[in-house]
Amino acid sequence: MVNKFFDLLICRPLANEQSSSEKYNVPFGLAVMASDAISSVAYASQEILLVLVPIIGAASYAWLGKASLMIIGLLLILTVSYVQIIKAYPQGGGAYIVAKENLGVKPGLVAGASLLLDYILTVAVSASSGVAAITSAFPSLVPHSVLLAVVLIIILTILNLRGVSESAKMFSIPTYLFIFSMIFMIIFGIAKYIIYGAPSMHMIHQTLKPMGDVSIFLILKAFSSGCSALTGLEAVSNSVPNFKEPGQKNATIVMVLLTLCIFVIFGGSSLLARFYGAIPNDNVTVLAQIAYGVFSGKTFMFYVVQFTTAIILIMACNTSFTGFPMLMSVIARDGYAPRSFATRGKRLSFSNGIVFLSIIAGILVIIFKADTHLLIPLYSVGVFLSFTLAQTGMVIHWNKTNEKGKNTRKLINGFGAAITLLTTGVIVYEKFLSGAWVIIILVPIIVLGFLHIKKHYNYVARGLRADEEYVKNCGIGQTYNHLIIVPIASLNKATLGALKYARSLTSDVIALNVSPNKEYMDKLKHKWEELNTDILLVSKYSPYRAIVTPLIEYIGVISKAAVPDEKITVVLPQFITRDKSGQILHNHTSFLLREALLRYDNIVVSTYPFHLSPKDDNEE
Amino acid sequence: MVNKFFDLLICRPLANEQSSSEKYNVPFGLAVMASDAISSVAYASQEILLVLVPIIGAASYAWLGKASLMIIGLLLILTVSYVQIIKAYPQGGGAYIVAKENLGVKPGLVAGASLLLDYILTVAVSASSGVAAITSAFPSLVPHSVLLAVVLIIILTILNLRGVSESAKMFSIPTYLFIFSMIFMIIFGIAKYIIYGAPSMHMIHQTLKPMGDVSIFLILKAFSSGCSALTGLEAVSNSVPNFKEPGQKNATIVMVLLTLCIFVIFGGSSLLARFYGAIPNDNVTVLAQIAYGVFSGKTFMFYVVQFTTAIILIMACNTSFTGFPMLMSVIARDGYAPRSFATRGKRLSFSNGIVFLSIIAGILVIIFKADTHLLIPLYSVGVFLSFTLAQTGMVIHWNKTNEKGKNTRKLINGFGAAITLLTTGVIVYEKFLSGAWVIIILVPIIVLGFLHIKKHYNYVARGLRADEEYVKNCGIGQTYNHLIIVPIASLNKATLGALKYARSLTSDVIALNVSPNKEYMDKLKHKWEELNTDILLVSKYSPYRAIVTPLIEYIGVISKAAVPDEKITVVLPQFITRDKSGQILHNHTSFLLREALLRYDNIVVSTYPFHLSPKDDNEE
Repeated sequence: MVNKFFDLLICRPLANEQSSSEKYNVPFGLAVMASDAISSVAYASQEILLVLVPIIGAASYAWLGKASLMIIGLLLILTVSYVQIIKAYPQGGGAYIVAKENLGVKPGLVAGASLLLDYILTVAVSASSGVAAITSAFPSLVPHSVLLAVVLIIILTILNLRGVSESAKMFSIPTYLFIFSMIFMIIFGIAKYIIYGAPSMHMIHQTLKPMGDVSIFLILKAFSSGCSALTGLEAVSNSVPNFKEPGQKNATIVMVLLTLCIFVIFGGSSLLARFYGAIPNDNVTVLAQIAYGVFSGKTFMFYVVQFTTAIILIMACNTSFTGFPMLMSVIARDGYAPRSFATRGKRLSFSNGIVFLSIIAGILVIIFKADTHLLIPLYSVGVFLSFTLAQTGMVIHWNKTNEKGKNTRKLINGFGAAITLLTTGVIVYEKFLSGAWVIIILVPIIVLGFLHIKKHYNYVARGLRADEEYVKNCGIGQTYNHLIIVPIASLNKATLGALKYARSLTSDVIALNVSPNKEYMDKLKHKWEELNTDILLVSKYSPYRAIVTPLIEYIGVISKAAVPDEKITVVLPQFITRDKSGQILHNHTSFLLREALLRYDNIVVSTYPFHLSPKDDNEE
Repeated sequence: MVNKFFDLLICRPLANEQSSSEKYNVPFGLAVMASDAISSVAYASQEILLVLVPIIGAASYAWLGKASLMIIGLLLILTVSYVQIIKAYPQGGGAYIVAKENLGVKPGLVAGASLLLDYILTVAVSASSGVAAITSAFPSLVPHSVLLAVVLIIILTILNLRGVSESAKMFSIPTYLFIFSMIFMIIFGIAKYIIYGAPSMHMIHQTLKPMGDVSIFLILKAFSSGCSALTGLEAVSNSVPNFKEPGQKNATIVMVLLTLCIFVIFGGSSLLARFYGAIPNDNVTVLAQIAYGVFSGKTFMFYVVQFTTAIILIMACNTSFTGFPMLMSVIARDGYAPRSFATRGKRLSFSNGIVFLSIIAGILVIIFKADTHLLIPLYSVGVFLSFTLAQTGMVIHWNKTNEKGKNTRKLINGFGAAITLLTTGVIVYEKFLSGAWVIIILVPIIVLGFLHIKKHYNYVARGLRADEEYVKNCGIGQTYNHLIIVPIASLNKATLGALKYARSLTSDVIALNVSPNKEYMDKLKHKWEELNTDILLVSKYSPYRAIVTPLIEYIGVISKAAVPDEKITVVLPQFITRDKSGQILHNHTSFLLREALLRYDNIVVSTYPFHLSPKDDNEE
């Protein structure tokens, strides 16, 4: 029943061979990768103005242009760098792989952990802010915010479990709607500005009184706030193997298109903010003010821009649903995370990673009650940390290769590394007390966890490895001396079955009875005689009423006395009832014995099942 | 470590043979059994006055006497009845046994469930009210009430786990202190009254203005409130086997002494309440007012009475810690509760019952935040329900016997049954809405649970029973055709060990490999050839990447095709690591396989352990 329901939700399984049909082509790839990156563009100009306007007033608009140009410069550097990464590392993994290969395992894991944290935060924040957008339209839903956010995450989880191109198709429509409505607004707005000229800036000069001077620090702060426009940029390089062949070429095209989108939308909206004199305030977003100015009031196009913006904020989650499982699978394949993250589910998506992401994000949403206020400061530290590590890694990469133009490229990446390091520093400094410290603590903890898992897997692999020589000399076909011990409390159908089974495997069988009741012991001995068997009955009286401990002690003594070519098998009779609920009433002894006996390396523990016939259940 | 700590808390184990030395003699038995019964006496007079005074004013004192006489009459009837029960049912169990043997299983279980609920409530209420007594002396502890109550329950649990006479010794001192200080107060108070005459009742006649008339209903209500004096009376009859030999005689002596105590303390305090004109109010208890009057103010003896009263209220829990596990063990021995309640722990106490009681009571304390207000109305319905059932059962009992004087005894029990039934009715009526409905709902649910457990045990016993003929013809010594299947993912030390073990038991061994990776499958086939064995390697490609399901399906097909004298053993290689934490990273497949395969009745599931050498753990 439950299985069928899940099958219905997630569709029929896909075979390994169907793999390529589930991969992204360019338009769908752009739709999936773009949502996170361009949704952050939607509020980047506003973030810059929020820093500048209270200090330098109307002069902000000039500096908005300069800061935007700086960010666009950084965008270009990052794009060039990521295109190089896609080319150099076709297996995906982005910052993690680049840092690992060039800087070493630990920097790689730091980059990986930072990105993973950021993906989780993106889901929690986007789901919460998407719900906030819905509830500001329908205030009666406010008490159900947490529920709505969790439902949203569950819907995204199901869509993503259905497989990669399914979810790409789902999300391409609103993403393109947003992209095209933004481009239309920018072209229309610029054309309108050129034809009709600027609206009066008089009011703005009156409203915005400068309170201080332009300082390097202020510009840096504005710059770092605007850098949120660049989060989500790394998604493409992580997901190269998700693209249709030729994967690297398609990924590169998507990367360039994405940069173009960011460039046009971010640059354009910064320009329009200046042209139409948008002033950031608590109630109306800068984007809404621009749309209001460009489309002359609350017209149809104004609502289109508002609506698609709300949807793209929710969609931003989805980039994480692609990026997180992919990165996790790369880390798991390297042995730093549990292996199960590296196996593809029924529909070829990394289902364990998807489910894990949605559970953690869901918990965050519930703990923070779908309020993004406390989560946002934790955000984007991780992205810029991983940018820095990837850029630094690429510098080392160029040192190792002999490609032509490597010095120019090294320079670009070196510059990028310096800028992103600076940005990371500014972000950490600005947001340390309001939450970035959590990331600073969590990243090393996660990295230590990764290393611990790797160490454990190595230990297991080393311990299990059987080389050619070992295989040849393992002595398969040689016989052991078998001794079988059957612990019994009484002679019933289950224990008789187990004894019969044991006796037919070997002639050395011991029936072991430990009892705190001498009367029962005598009864058993009496009944045993009727059995007429050569199985040895060993009865031990337990004055302190314990059963499990004396059994284990006795079997332990036999185990220690065994010679090397002797194997002891303990057959535990277990009766199986039809209803699972009945199981809690018995078979505790079996469970405890099994766990304890597996500690001896020459004891094999068998469970002999005896099935009670179900029809007896209805008799009184 | 943890085990040693528990051993220290609970002392060395006691052997079955030491049983009698852990049993009660008369003085210790009285101390253990008395605390619940006489602690309720401490507030019974007050309960009666609380009902009467607001309605009939000063006339209450005359009616207090009459109601007290009625209750003492009921006390004598119950005592006579319980002495008979002790004589007739030396194995303990009280109301449960009497009702079950004479009225049938269901009335017996109703009585049992009622008493069990009452025991649980007693612990929760007494611990909470004991803590309330402590916190009214030290108000700074109020925020920690819940913690204190839980700690109190834990202390009582440990003391009781140490064994019966240990806890009896612990609790005898405060119990006797209370009894003797009460008796001293009563004698001194009466003597003072006779010598110096009554204190002026003038003020009382002024304060207490009658608001209504004496009615049958009012008297019944006063009587039923005062009946709380009789809760705890049944404890002795439940615990006959806990007494030193001659158990029945000792129990009878304790029963009579207990009645004497109740008679003297309850009768005496009712008398003194009248002599010294105690008026119930919210701040000072009637007992405190009596002590104040008798000992002429807040003298040394006043504080002794107050202090011992507070302690006896806490001690009242302890009767439940004796009664609950004892009753639970009797019910479990009959098969209506999980068997583990019928086995004695290391120190010969019924440790499972004790721990269960303290966990449930602890949860109640935490849920109700150590506030007794909501728990008290649930209280005492159960006791009187079980009194009624026990009395009715005794009436039937006398019908069945031919002892002399059986008609008189039947009359006494019949009268007792009628009175306790009436009392139960009044209590349910009075307290229905304030909580007694919970008991009315819970008792049938618990009884259904008991019956369900019994049905399950019967079903299992019937299904497992091997009669003499079955034992003779079970064919032990006949051989099966053995087929052993070893599921393997690769050839490593663990799987090689399992294969070698399997091959040495039988020549029919199949190594079963299910893999979603054709490359790995080829690698395995190649390595297999080096093994040079007659074990059949079956490789199955899993296009949908599932491992467990195809394995189970394949083994299931073999299981269904097997002839009757064929047994299939599935040997699961499992590697054991030194650190438990590592286990969560692997062996999931083994676990799932084991559970699924036990559903086939001709499949035995074996676990072959391979121990990774611990010293590898420190290598990098």
